[in-house]
Parts: sequence; C-alpha cells; structure tokens
Amino acid sequence: MTPRKRPPATGQAVLVIHGGAGTILKQYMTPEKEAAYRAGLTDSLKAGYAILKDGGPALEAVQAAVVVMEENPLFNAGKGAVYTHEGTHEQDACLMDGPTKNIGAVAAVKRIANPIKLARLVMDHSPHVLLCGDGAEKFAVDNGMSLVDDPSYFDTAERKRQWQQALRKEKTAGKASTRLDHSDDQDKIGTVGAVALDVQGNLAAATSTGGMTNKRFGRIGDTPIAGAGTYADDLCAVSATGVGEFIIRAVVAHDIAALMAYKSMTLEEAADHVVMHKFNDLGGSGGVIAVDRRGNIAMPFNSSGMYRGYVRPDGTIWTAIFRE
Amino acid sequence: MTPRKRPPATGQAVLVIHGGAGTILKQYMTPEKEAAYRAGLTDSLKAGYAILKDGGPALEAVQAAVVVMEENPLFNAGKGAVYTHEGTHEQDACLMDGPTKNIGAVAAVKRIANPIKLARLVMDHSPHVLLCGDGAEKFAVDNGMSLVDDPSYFDTAERKRQWQQALRKEKTAGKASTRLDHSDDQDKIGTVGAVALDVQGNLAAATSTGGMTNKRFGRIGDTPIAGAGTYADDLCAVSATGVGEFIIRAVVAHDIAALMAYKSMTLEEAADHVVMHKFNDLGGSGGVIAVDRRGNIAMPFNSSGMYRGYVRPDGTIWTAIFRE
Repeated sequence: MTPRKRPPATGQAVLVIHGGAGTILKQYMTPEKEAAYRAGLTDSLKAGYAILKDGGPALEAVQAAVVVMEENPLFNAGKGAVYTHEGTHEQDACLMDGPTKNIGAVAAVKRIANPIKLARLVMDHSPHVLLCGDGAEKFAVDNGMSLVDDPSYFDTAERKRQWQQALRKEKTAGKASTRLDHSDDQDKIGTVGAVALDVQGNLAAATSTGGMTNKRFGRIGDTPIAGAGTYADDLCAVSATGVGEFIIRAVVAHDIAALMAYKSMTLEEAADHVVMHKFNDLGGSGGVIAVDRRGNIAMPFNSSGMYRGYVRPDGTIWTAIFRE
Repeated sequence: MTPRKRPPATGQAVLVIHGGAGTILKQYMTPEKEAAYRAGLTDSLKAGYAILKDGGPALEAVQAAVVVMEENPLFNAGKGAVYTHEGTHEQDACLMDGPTKNIGAVAAVKRIANPIKLARLVMDHSPHVLLCGDGAEKFAVDNGMSLVDDPSYFDTAERKRQWQQALRKEKTAGKASTRLDHSDDQDKIGTVGAVALDVQGNLAAATSTGGMTNKRFGRIGDTPIAGAGTYADDLCAVSATGVGEFIIRAVVAHDIAALMAYKSMTLEEAADHVVMHKFNDLGGSGGVIAVDRRGNIAMPFNSSGMYRGYVRPDGTIWTAIFRE
C-alpha cells in the first residue's frame, strides 16, 4: 500500500491566552500575587484545553478559557473589571469564528456577568454582529440571559483604589487630558483573550475587557471591534491587549492576517512587524497572542509585561508574565 | 536648466461621495425623485470641493460633504435617518485622517443633528476614538454641542412608511429572524460617505448613517468601525455602504488598503476584488467609494444601485445612481 497523505499539518490542538499587557514590573509583584496570576492563567488554559483535547471546536475552547478569566477578579474582565470615570463598570467582548467569519460582539454592557457569553448569544441568535449598552442588555434578557442585579458584583477593592488614584491624578493635572496617559498603565488597562486551533484545523479568537480605568462612559475600545482587537479567519486567529485607541487605529489583528495572506509572512514575522513596528510607531503600548493554521504561535508585546500562556503539544502548561 | 522633478503625481484635488447602496431600481424611481437625489449629491460635492480647490485639507472636505447629505432628508443619515425597531433613530458616524491615522467615531447616538460633527469633536477633543450612546451625547454637551431637543426632528414620512412596512413583514413572518433579510434593502439600508485627496496629497474618509430600518436598538454597524466601513492611511481612503454586518466580517476598507500595500494591487483591482469577490462571496450586498494618493478613484458595488458622484479634474460634477 502507498502511504496515505498526511492529514492537514495540524491535527493538533493549540490554545494560547493572555490576561492583559501593560507596565507589569517584577519589583512591584509579590511572589504571592505572581503565583495567583499564574494559577489564574493555568485554570483558564485547562478549561479551554479540556474541550480541544476531546476534539471539540476552537470556538468553544476560546469561550471557555475567557469565561474562567472573567470570573477571576485578578483580571480586568467580568468580576474585577476596572471602573469608569463615573465609578461604574462597562464591558466589551467579542468572539470570531475563523471558518465562517461569524462574529458576535457587545460593547459598553453594565450588567452582564460574562460578556463573552453574551457575545456568543449575539453570534448565534442576532442578525447583528455588534450590540451596545441597553440594547445589548435587552437582547440578553430576550434570549434568556439574566442580568446582574447588583452592579457592585463587579466591584473589587484593588480596582477601586486604581480608579480613585486615577481621579486624584487627573484632578492634580487639571482638566481631563485629550491625550491618553499610559505611563502608569499597569493600573489602568488590561484585557483577557484566547485564540485556538482545534484538531479539525479550525481557528477562533475571543477577547473580553472592562476597558481602561477612568475611561469616560460610553467609550468603546478595540476588544469588540473585529479586525482591531479580535480576528479569526482560515489563516490565523488573533486577540490583542493594550491601549485600545492605538489598536483600532492600526487595525492590528486584521493587519497581521493580511501580512500573512498577501505578503506570505510567517505568523511570527507578521505579528512582530505589526506590534513592534506599526503599532509601536503610532505610540501604542500592548501586545497580541496569535495562532496560525499550522499551530504556530506568537505572543509579541512592547509593554514591560503581558500575562500569557499556552498549552504545549504534550498537554503541559506554560505561563509567563514579564519579558523573559 | 535641467527640468525639475515633477511634484507628487497628485497636486490635484479629488472628492468622491456616496449616498448609499442597495436595491435601487430604475422602474421604481420617478424622474423627479432621481433629479432630487442627483441634486443632493451635487450639493454635497460642491460643498466638499469648495474646500479642496482652495487648497483646504481632505479631512475638512469629507466632513463638509457628509454634513450636506446629513441635512438632506433623502439620505439615511442625520435628518432622514431610518427608524429602529422601537421607532427611534440611532446614528453612527466616523472620520479618519490618513496622514495621522487619527479617528473620531460615534455609535448609537439619538440626539445629534450632525453625527459627523460629533465624530470630529471626538477626534479633536477626546482621548478615545469611539464613543457610544448616552456617553457620546454627554461628551457632545461637555464640548459645547447642542442636542436635538425633539427627536421628531429626524422623522420623515417616507422612513416611517418603510419602518411600518418592515414591522408588518416581520409580524407576518413570525418571530424576528436571526438572519438578515436584505431582499428589499432599498427600503432598509443606506449610508452617506465621502473620501478625498487634497492638493497636499493627504487622504481622508468620512461615513455617517442611520443604520438599517427596523434594526434593534443598540445595534452598531460598520460605519463607525475603522477598518470596516471607514478607513484612510497614506495609500488610500475608503468609505463603505451596504449591509454592515458583512462589511464588518470582511473588514472591507482595511482589506482594500492591505491589498494595495502588500500585493501592489491598484486601487481599482483591490476595491473590485474585495467588494465583488470577498464581500460578495460572504453574502454581503453594497459597495465602496475609494481614492488613492495618485488621485485614482474606484466605486464598485454588487447591489443594483449606489448613489454616487465625484468631481472631475476640471471641477465639473459627475453623479450616478444605477448600474451604468
């Protein structure tokens, strides 16, 4: 018998996650806090990988991985979301399915415990791809999702401290700046995200965030914008984190996909070029996680740290926080 | 003397506009209505070109051209915006400046007479690039823009008829569909947009819309999404119109820019490939207007018509509605 052709180069499940990028410096991190973040990343990877190793779809895996981080108050999404200028919490989330290019996204939602689950409801049950504010919450209720009764569910002491510090700083500086100050972005930004390749060769991406501390209410960042903070097609899947305004302006996620598709760059070349040059040169701070259809991964960032991790082919878990 | 090198191929001002794409069929258009649309397009082109021919910036020209269409009830933006499912009007708008990649955008605003002017305020005076709903309106007031006191300002008899027809159709069909019905999109969609090249060689794009008739409140379309419905860099400027959900999924505007930048396609090749193949193959209906830094223009659409026009190098105006 002649040997059969090998199945598509993958056949192997890959999951990569991030828990936000920013000015994350080792000298400000206690061993206890570092261990807690690494445990949070590990829990997320386990949840997503449990689906992939049983042959489940990438779309389900990225959602499951994000849900775990939304429920962990250490990360800026779901429980633990940052405060707006007004002291509320407004969240954005997006899911994209590579093979179909279907998208579900929500923006500026206030009473949704797991915004990524609402993004999935939008993908599955709305003729629209992006819903915001009260309209998104009405859609949630109409489709059987409960709202959080008491918005203080999202409050955490650490985020409150960061918000009050930002308010004080703004007051000292006088009138609210029209420029983004991300010199102290450890306290201000953060996002969670996951990208996956399943054993069928399908790619998916998911991102969820509370946005940036002290943002004006109604602000929408890059997370729910397909092509900017979240993107998946049949070549690659990307989830970004960092200062959203710059990620939108650089159309970061789609630009990585375009460089692979049109310039035949590898995933690593494309992700590096966009993050370390184009996004960086605009003045942006942050990073991306990405996976391609061959199972290659990339995790470039130009900030001092990015909470990140992936599952190795043998099923073991790798996590990191600082620049290695 | 050796002749000096020619200045950059442009040196010449170019303005292209659209007033929406859809199922626009000659048999349903009276000569009076056609003349009114052509007059509206002409007014818009004159307003934008007046700025360009005096050496003014592309960014000002696209804004001025869009303002004229927002104030004309024939077009689905500003006065004349379509109705949501709930009988309200919610508008989206975006401006992008090619040389700086600065963006200003608003989504789901209810009481802004000229959403494109609010988008410009966001670009000039907010640290954010995209604001939605009440937060966007609070930003407007904080920055000296008046809100429309009576939302019936946006009401027009024709849009009301289209909304009621859509409600009846939905009722007959039973439960609201999760799929977009754009078989009768003449009555449902529309957008206005402008792209320009100024004599300094700078590009800009602007888009404004009431969205789609009978959309659920809180729905955000492609218009305020940089990379999808609106995009400008130093190679080209693009404004899209059509079924926004598909324009977002195909990242239409940035994909055209990427094909030019990374595959050396001409503007026409890139715009045609994205609209007539990639967007079309996903199931989308609509079109784009685009201009490149050499002053080339493209206006592909896969719907039966698109309100469109441009100013010729000699300053004369060309407009069209149907497929030629």
